[in-house]
Amino acid sequence: MNGNGPSKLVDPLEDPLPGVGTYEDFNTIDWVREKSKDRDRHREITNKSRQSTVALLHSVSDAFSGWLLMLLVGLMSGALAGGIDIAAHWLTDMKGGVCLIGFWFNHEHCCWKSNEATFQDRDRCPQWQSWAELITGTSEGAFAYIVNYLMYIFWALLFSFLAVTLVRAFAPYACGSGIPEIKTILSGFIIRGYLGKWTLIIKTITLVLAVSSGLSLGKEGPLVHVACCCANILCHLFTKYRKNEAKRREVLSAAAAVGVSVAFGAPIGGVLFSLEEVSYYFPLKTLWRSFFAALVAAFTLRSINPFGNSRLVLFYVEFHAPWHLVELAPFVLLGIFGGLWGALFIRANIAWCRRRKTTRLGHYPVIEVLVVAALTALLAYPNSYTRMSGAELISELFNDCSLLDSSQLCGYKQVTDRPAGAGLYTALWQLALALVFKMMITVITFGMKVPSGLFIPSMLAYYNHDSFIFKGWCSPGADCITPGLYAMVGAAACLGGVTRMTVSLVVIMFELTGGLEYIVPLMAATMTSKWVADAFGREGIYEAHIRLNGYPFLEPKEEFEHSSLTVDVMRPKRSDPALAVLTQEGMTVGQVEALVESTHYSGFPVVVSQESQRLVGFVLRRDLLISIDNARKRQEGVVSASQVVFTEHAPSVAADAPPPLRLRGIMDLSPFTVTDHTPMDITVDIFRKLGLRQCLVTHNGRLLGIITKKDILKHMAQIANRDPDSILFN
Amino acid sequence: MNGNGPSKLVDPLEDPLPGVGTYEDFNTIDWVREKSKDRDRHREITNKSRQSTVALLHSVSDAFSGWLLMLLVGLMSGALAGGIDIAAHWLTDMKGGVCLIGFWFNHEHCCWKSNEATFQDRDRCPQWQSWAELITGTSEGAFAYIVNYLMYIFWALLFSFLAVTLVRAFAPYACGSGIPEIKTILSGFIIRGYLGKWTLIIKTITLVLAVSSGLSLGKEGPLVHVACCCANILCHLFTKYRKNEAKRREVLSAAAAVGVSVAFGAPIGGVLFSLEEVSYYFPLKTLWRSFFAALVAAFTLRSINPFGNSRLVLFYVEFHAPWHLVELAPFVLLGIFGGLWGALFIRANIAWCRRRKTTRLGHYPVIEVLVVAALTALLAYPNSYTRMSGAELISELFNDCSLLDSSQLCGYKQVTDRPAGAGLYTALWQLALALVFKMMITVITFGMKVPSGLFIPSMLAYYNHDSFIFKGWCSPGADCITPGLYAMVGAAACLGGVTRMTVSLVVIMFELTGGLEYIVPLMAATMTSKWVADAFGREGIYEAHIRLNGYPFLEPKEEFEHSSLTVDVMRPKRSDPALAVLTQEGMTVGQVEALVESTHYSGFPVVVSQESQRLVGFVLRRDLLISIDNARKRQEGVVSASQVVFTEHAPSVAADAPPPLRLRGIMDLSPFTVTDHTPMDITVDIFRKLGLRQCLVTHNGRLLGIITKKDILKHMAQIANRDPDSILFN
Repeated sequence: MNGNGPSKLVDPLEDPLPGVGTYEDFNTIDWVREKSKDRDRHREITNKSRQSTVALLHSVSDAFSGWLLMLLVGLMSGALAGGIDIAAHWLTDMKGGVCLIGFWFNHEHCCWKSNEATFQDRDRCPQWQSWAELITGTSEGAFAYIVNYLMYIFWALLFSFLAVTLVRAFAPYACGSGIPEIKTILSGFIIRGYLGKWTLIIKTITLVLAVSSGLSLGKEGPLVHVACCCANILCHLFTKYRKNEAKRREVLSAAAAVGVSVAFGAPIGGVLFSLEEVSYYFPLKTLWRSFFAALVAAFTLRSINPFGNSRLVLFYVEFHAPWHLVELAPFVLLGIFGGLWGALFIRANIAWCRRRKTTRLGHYPVIEVLVVAALTALLAYPNSYTRMSGAELISELFNDCSLLDSSQLCGYKQVTDRPAGAGLYTALWQLALALVFKMMITVITFGMKVPSGLFIPSMLAYYNHDSFIFKGWCSPGADCITPGLYAMVGAAACLGGVTRMTVSLVVIMFELTGGLEYIVPLMAATMTSKWVADAFGREGIYEAHIRLNGYPFLEPKEEFEHSSLTVDVMRPKRSDPALAVLTQEGMTVGQVEALVESTHYSGFPVVVSQESQRLVGFVLRRDLLISIDNARKRQEGVVSASQVVFTEHAPSVAADAPPPLRLRGIMDLSPFTVTDHTPMDITVDIFRKLGLRQCLVTHNGRLLGIITKKDILKHMAQIANRDPDSILFN
Repeated sequence: MNGNGPSKLVDPLEDPLPGVGTYEDFNTIDWVREKSKDRDRHREITNKSRQSTVALLHSVSDAFSGWLLMLLVGLMSGALAGGIDIAAHWLTDMKGGVCLIGFWFNHEHCCWKSNEATFQDRDRCPQWQSWAELITGTSEGAFAYIVNYLMYIFWALLFSFLAVTLVRAFAPYACGSGIPEIKTILSGFIIRGYLGKWTLIIKTITLVLAVSSGLSLGKEGPLVHVACCCANILCHLFTKYRKNEAKRREVLSAAAAVGVSVAFGAPIGGVLFSLEEVSYYFPLKTLWRSFFAALVAAFTLRSINPFGNSRLVLFYVEFHAPWHLVELAPFVLLGIFGGLWGALFIRANIAWCRRRKTTRLGHYPVIEVLVVAALTALLAYPNSYTRMSGAELISELFNDCSLLDSSQLCGYKQVTDRPAGAGLYTALWQLALALVFKMMITVITFGMKVPSGLFIPSMLAYYNHDSFIFKGWCSPGADCITPGLYAMVGAAACLGGVTRMTVSLVVIMFELTGGLEYIVPLMAATMTSKWVADAFGREGIYEAHIRLNGYPFLEPKEEFEHSSLTVDVMRPKRSDPALAVLTQEGMTVGQVEALVESTHYSGFPVVVSQESQRLVGFVLRRDLLISIDNARKRQEGVVSASQVVFTEHAPSVAADAPPPLRLRGIMDLSPFTVTDHTPMDITVDIFRKLGLRQCLVTHNGRLLGIITKKDILKHMAQIANRDPDSILFN
């Protein structure tokens, strides 16, 4: 009870058994303990550093290992992102034709190598041959068109088949966008292998294949996953991060920022994305390190220069035309449209995914992917806007027309008085069709068993829409409005509706354009979009997928609104048998084992006595089993009749009794408690802020029950009229 | 004990007595309770909204009141900042001369009005007369110089005298930068009047005077204070924010972002500044709203257009010259210099402020200000770089030379082969002197009894230094490096060393230049600067001032490193008398009053009985006194002999006994508890994350003691070998 005695006993560094203090798969970590463990480790290093120079160096290297790790994560993610971009570009072009100089050149590179291209048509050169030319010798006529069409479909099917097969064979975790799972992992859940090396390798390869196959998916979500895999693997180089789940999650938060940074070339936006969207525990130190890693990654990517323009970003835009206050009305309209689309998309996608989970559809993932890929290719090829890759289309729509521009969308600019040319109308029709098509196919694609991102498809959908709208405005001629701006605002609104991002979205868009001028339109649209979408359902696509999968994720943004008390949520319920507790002395090893085996709880409170129910501590099931098992093997005389003792001083036992088993070392002497009268909103707040996985409930100083994260989630599901058993795992 | 009974009893909305649940001045709020109170309020409104249309409208208006408030804060702060800029510009020019067309025109405006100025010398026109011209009729010669000199000093003295007198007479809280106090307030402390209307009015006026007087101070900190005052005053328009200290602090966090946004024209940087530097509780909702308010303010300021260039920012820079990898070395050197300067500045400034507090110097604030103002003016006038205002100097140093530039610094550019002209050497000498002078005078100025900011002086100091450095590089000729970039990086390093800001600083600088290109140099310098400065002492200038003033501020960034247990820190200490507790029944009103009067604790635990020490709840002293007082006045038969009852059901009393006083309503039924074995780092974490002001300590289910925020701060001071009694207030 007084200062010095117990502090020795609770020292967590005192010969811990292997396994004690670790977690099982699909379990939730205890943030408070993990952070406390790290502080203990840090304290030890600091204390030692005063003793010798070696220890001092160790202490310094320990302090800088975080920065070194960030540097490595940034370099590796940037390099991987660059590789993915180059490979995807090459494979996408391969769907259209092949380079005669060497098949490993993409279209642009091939023509650039040939040295014959003029500035006017730099994407046409004899060295690059479409499949029709190669096979039939001509690129004209219906037959050539059909040959090209078929080859396009063939490659799309091949790529998607490879992608889905690789995922299924080697790394089932590599499918999907990964962001819902990463959010869950960052909130403290353990999914072993989700960020492992196989997932990394397979995800990188299949992402390239999936993007090249022409499926309506983006690489942003998967890039976040890839960056997190890199971070997780690199964590193994540093004891500090390998052994501590909380510290590792700090690194993963930074890696999420890195992923967005390389996807968009927006380091600040990436950091805010991580802060706003995916992270759970994000101390200021992490903010600064994330920013560093995001910058390193962005510059690594730039030096690889996958887009050949030494720009950081995928679709760099530079227009500085001012916008007028009147234009806020259409921007808000775009926001409303974006919000509606977002709400609709989430509903449709979740309904489709649920169908996939519950019906026989889910048994044939390969066939599903092939059918969707075939359908996509079949419908996409005839329309030049859906045929080109997402990034190309976006950059075409983003940019204002210049005189050199050969795009059909700029048809109206080629004559001086600028009447809308026939080409423009065709283009707009095609865009409208592309919009409808992309919208529908994306609903089905997102959630398939291939790596799939959401950003670009959502943005695409909207770009098209905008371009369609601006027709009515600009056909009278003159620079009345900037179509590219509308495309951008529409994209933001649409993405905002789907993901419910706010600040990070605006900042990413701001970094894409590099001008403060357009923040207000972007903000107006994003804000409207979020409000409109929230009116139809408060959760974004990632939260919806988390719920669909039943992950134990306690949303930090949502307030707990119901007026229940902790006593209503805790276990045991009124009709249940009493709480399973251990007493601090008087129980035998056999009794303890029987208790543990007869229940499935992951931990047991320790009380002074069954009568008083005064709480002493808390023991985790896993630690208890490991310790008893170990004691039975190693420790002389520990048998089923041995007493289990949690007190500070061993009680006096009869001379002939077996020696007691002292387990105070594995007991948590500072379990969290709340009273039964605590309003649930406060309890939920405590769970969220401290990252607890369980909390004991007391009444007037007596132990009454226990409340876990899962209990809270089940209670919340019940309140929202959902099935409480949809919450899986612990 | 079961669901329904107690929930009625703890309903905080059930006829609360006026005063119950409020706080006294210089006390710390309880974040958990405040937020819980707001959730109760929100729940009530939501429930009612289902009943009638009026209630529904009320609910909608309640939901949008936050946004409306943000809009108002943005508009008001933007307008005030614009007014301050215009007024300060006018008064600063007045130190040099007067406009003959009307004394209310500033120099530039005057010449612009006169229509005679050519492009070449737009700042010279007959309508603007220096004081010498006006008085002696000539602007040439030593006599005229002396007249101008004396008038300069006269105005400086007048302005500073007015500033210090106004502050002393009407609003003592208006002095200083205000950021340390705002940090403390945001962490949950109450300082009544610190953000009141008088402070706002006086701070606005005196800020203009102080800046115009030429004192070495900036307006950034005070602008944050002004914005927070606006927010606090506007909060009174909305019940939701007026009545809830936690909600109001959300608004104040946003206002801090607004302040930086208008000071630099950097809305994103402002939000990150608020997040990183000043805020304590910053939920994501606040992030988004802060961003909105910061944007509104920035655009309001722009539409007022105080700088006459329709730019958002004080010193807009546009240069896009690339930097070379080799240049990272000088950038890191700048960072080291910045860090050293930061550490030195903090030490010197704190030493000076402590001297002011402890010696007789503090008794003569007016004389101190006048002496410093006179000294500043006396020394500043002969040097043209110190004579001009901070903002002017910065923009001169920031910008690259163009052919039209008449600045002496650009002397070397006016001949084709670019040898360094004589003018350049003079300029560099003057700059070097200005650097030394500014550095010394700022140490004394910051902390005087006038509104004073730190940003610009710190930045200034460094700009000068840089310009001095680049001399060696660029005199050989050619565009080898960009001097403006060096100035900017140096400024960032210097500010980083003083304030220890990181991300927000880089982002502010990024917004000033609008180019991603320079993020890496800025980051390198800021990072180095922070590391170097941290090596000399971990706290920034604001934290140092918080500690100097003894505010109860629990730094959220710093980890608690010591290995003490809660039992070592809690009260009562081993030698102290036992903890003062109330029992849930059996005490009379008289006994309770005697206990309250004999102690000075701000709250008392309620236990089942003195013997069992089983905890039931916690009662605040203030609530207890108000309730007993009220009961004695209003309630029939409550006398000193009446029993005080905290139980759910009133005990049976003898027929002749006075009726019992039931006080369960004011008891907190869910006090926070930790066990005595909880390591202090966990306890500190709980205090920080949940924003507690006290926590009860138990041992094996029995109440053992209490630990407050002040106890923790005192303990931390003790560990750091500082005087624990330097922590004032509760």
